[in-house]
Amino acid sequence: MKWEEIDQQACSVARALAVLGERWTLLIIRDAFRGTRRFDDFQRSLGVTRHRLSERLRKLVGEGVLTRVAYMERPTRYEYRLTRKGLALYPVLMTLSQWGDDWLDDGNGPPQYYRHSLCGKQTRAILCCDECGDPLRPEEVSAQAGEVLSTYIAHLASRGEEVPSDGELARDAARYWRENRSDEA
Amino acid sequence: MKWEEIDQQACSVARALAVLGERWTLLIIRDAFRGTRRFDDFQRSLGVTRHRLSERLRKLVGEGVLTRVAYMERPTRYEYRLTRKGLALYPVLMTLSQWGDDWLDDGNGPPQYYRHSLCGKQTRAILCCDECGDPLRPEEVSAQAGEVLSTYIAHLASRGEEVPSDGELARDAARYWRENRSDEA
Repeated sequence: MKWEEIDQQACSVARALAVLGERWTLLIIRDAFRGTRRFDDFQRSLGVTRHRLSERLRKLVGEGVLTRVAYMERPTRYEYRLTRKGLALYPVLMTLSQWGDDWLDDGNGPPQYYRHSLCGKQTRAILCCDECGDPLRPEEVSAQAGEVLSTYIAHLASRGEEVPSDGELARDAARYWRENRSDEA
Repeated sequence: MKWEEIDQQACSVARALAVLGERWTLLIIRDAFRGTRRFDDFQRSLGVTRHRLSERLRKLVGEGVLTRVAYMERPTRYEYRLTRKGLALYPVLMTLSQWGDDWLDDGNGPPQYYRHSLCGKQTRAILCCDECGDPLRPEEVSAQAGEVLSTYIAHLASRGEEVPSDGELARDAARYWRENRSDEA
């Protein structure tokens, strides 16, 4: 499989990485969360080439993560703002940052501390269950197949075939759905 | 700046991406969380070339995210297991997955549902404050400079110089620390 095809899987991690998984992209999002909006400011902050930056920004606009807004006329100048879809990446950024704080410390403490204005305390972000509020630990969470995966698993079972693992299943199930179920609609 | 140098910033997001930000790497981690351990299984699941896969695995082992363990002798065969540092990536994977569920749905519902065994309910992962337990929203969280950043900001202030933004600050502060503070130690 080519990298460009990873979004053709019934897997939300793969689909998210198809949008975010290129070099620089998540650093652009980081800067956008810190208030950067203009091409030259992104460029100065990241030190990436202009060509590469404009390619990345175009993709993020195309995916609806950023929106391009004119802030000046004659000449027209544009800036890039996070959309709701972009703002929804906050947990991804915070968990990456937390992991960096915890495991990639260079011995000088975390680069930044975070303060939660609601409670006024210095905060660490933890992942919680929206039902009970307890922290989510991998050993206490089990995955259950949604409709696309379970349709394909049932199809394999009806033919006495084994279920492949992980990415292969996600790929085959998505292909099966496209070729069969979408025709029926 | 080159991509290879992004870890030389006082920024935990950049440091995390220096380890995780290459194509395929987070999909390898996804598979590892779902139980994949062997080279051939990763290869079949991802469909990536063997050369690329072995380069990525080598880096993850070098960074201490995976560990390489012999599971057979004569001939010796190895498998790859998540370390504690690797297991600590669970929140990153879950927030990516959640974002994919919420924003990259193809109209057929989420590929997978998650069930939290502690409360027995179908769960959504939310990011919470470890102090008060409330959900963390970007507008209610403020960042405060840690020692490396604040030392550099004070240095700039003492010379009447302006503070650059985002990545530039993170880069300059890390360089300043390396060139000055580490000499004093």
